[in-house]
Amino acid sequence: MLSKNKIKELSLLHLKKHRDEQAVLIAEGNKLVLDLLPAFSCRTIVATAKWMLVNKPKAEEIITVEEDEIKKISLLKTRQQVFAVFKQPDFSFDKSDILNSLSLVLEDIQDPGNLGTILRIADWFGIETIFCSQHCADIYNPKTVQASMGAIARVKVFQVDLPTFLQEMKTELPVYGTFLNGDNIYNENLSNKGIIVMGNEGNGISKEVEKYIDNRLFIPSFPSERITSESLNVGAATAIICAEFRRRVL
Amino acid sequence: MLSKNKIKELSLLHLKKHRDEQAVLIAEGNKLVLDLLPAFSCRTIVATAKWMLVNKPKAEEIITVEEDEIKKISLLKTRQQVFAVFKQPDFSFDKSDILNSLSLVLEDIQDPGNLGTILRIADWFGIETIFCSQHCADIYNPKTVQASMGAIARVKVFQVDLPTFLQEMKTELPVYGTFLNGDNIYNENLSNKGIIVMGNEGNGISKEVEKYIDNRLFIPSFPSERITSESLNVGAATAIICAEFRRRVL
Repeated sequence: MLSKNKIKELSLLHLKKHRDEQAVLIAEGNKLVLDLLPAFSCRTIVATAKWMLVNKPKAEEIITVEEDEIKKISLLKTRQQVFAVFKQPDFSFDKSDILNSLSLVLEDIQDPGNLGTILRIADWFGIETIFCSQHCADIYNPKTVQASMGAIARVKVFQVDLPTFLQEMKTELPVYGTFLNGDNIYNENLSNKGIIVMGNEGNGISKEVEKYIDNRLFIPSFPSERITSESLNVGAATAIICAEFRRRVL
Repeated sequence: MLSKNKIKELSLLHLKKHRDEQAVLIAEGNKLVLDLLPAFSCRTIVATAKWMLVNKPKAEEIITVEEDEIKKISLLKTRQQVFAVFKQPDFSFDKSDILNSLSLVLEDIQDPGNLGTILRIADWFGIETIFCSQHCADIYNPKTVQASMGAIARVKVFQVDLPTFLQEMKTELPVYGTFLNGDNIYNENLSNKGIIVMGNEGNGISKEVEKYIDNRLFIPSFPSERITSESLNVGAATAIICAEFRRRVL
């Protein structure tokens, strides 16, 4: 059973402030929690007796409840069988880890859903490291975790000062970015060792970050003379670009 | 100024039932409203005096307000300068319209944000017609309209009984669909005259609809042996597939 105090304690974790203070993230739902259990250390798990029996989770604190009780701490509209609190991973970054691979850099992505979708895309295309600017949405926002569909367990995300980071990496790796006045991606050389920068939903890549980009890419609309949407959603653009980088080596 | 009655009348349109009864959709924000004004007939426009002066909108009913008042009828968290009610378009469908083009079919897409993103992708890639199954999210859900970023003004959306529709079209056009056990899209012939079916977020394409699909496509993950997310988000998959169809003819 969930005590009043426990409900209060767990509900506080809906807020970034409290998640960060305790260095935790929350996850709900059978599939997501099962994806995260092998990857992250679990602090608290709240689930039905049936779920506990089937899944035998390892956690510091295990609370068995009736299904009805979970909605008292849930952020989701639909009923869930399980709610879990995990410790935030403490990845360390070594530059040599990314010199032979493709990485993503995200500048000020605002929407947690977009951020989660991008994590899932990165995971699908074997991009194991993402660098976020200081003003990106919270990587441990429950909407990000949920939209990542477990990819957050497999993709390492670091928050960095983008200009400093890109200044350093630019000498080692090609840096790509997407621009509405960039060059048709299908005519460009794309390396599977490099960095791809994706910009903010409304403003794209800032002038300050643009300075570090060697390769300006554009996803052509069709037919080119047609009046169309001003741009693609950043998740859609990331998907197309990652797919195209990988297609070249398939 | 907004009277109490007007606030009530406009707020009712947050609900599908009332939008459908009155055959209207609502849109907020400068860019979206300006995108829709030339495309749809405007019933009511609520905006600041400054916005009215700059944009001189045509509408059956024009209500000038202080910026503060708009939040009383708004669904958005951020302040808006304009809120508008448009008549739902009444497109007619003629089979011959799609025989020389690429169209999208959506089976039970649940999330209004995904639906809007897909509209925006279709618009970018010159796909002018979308067919939705009966159980898709509401095309006039404000979240769909918002996520479409004005694409809803350029892409025609029809709700159809999918099996009946596909049964009829199958004799005229190739029908493509995405499956986790489909064939690598990069090895397949892709025609720019055809129909692409995208499935539900959780369940993909149903068995019933699968019967009408000639070409089963798959977006390969990378590297193929890596353990990854189970699938891509439907918006991301739609983006990659539409881009690939269009790349072939660029």
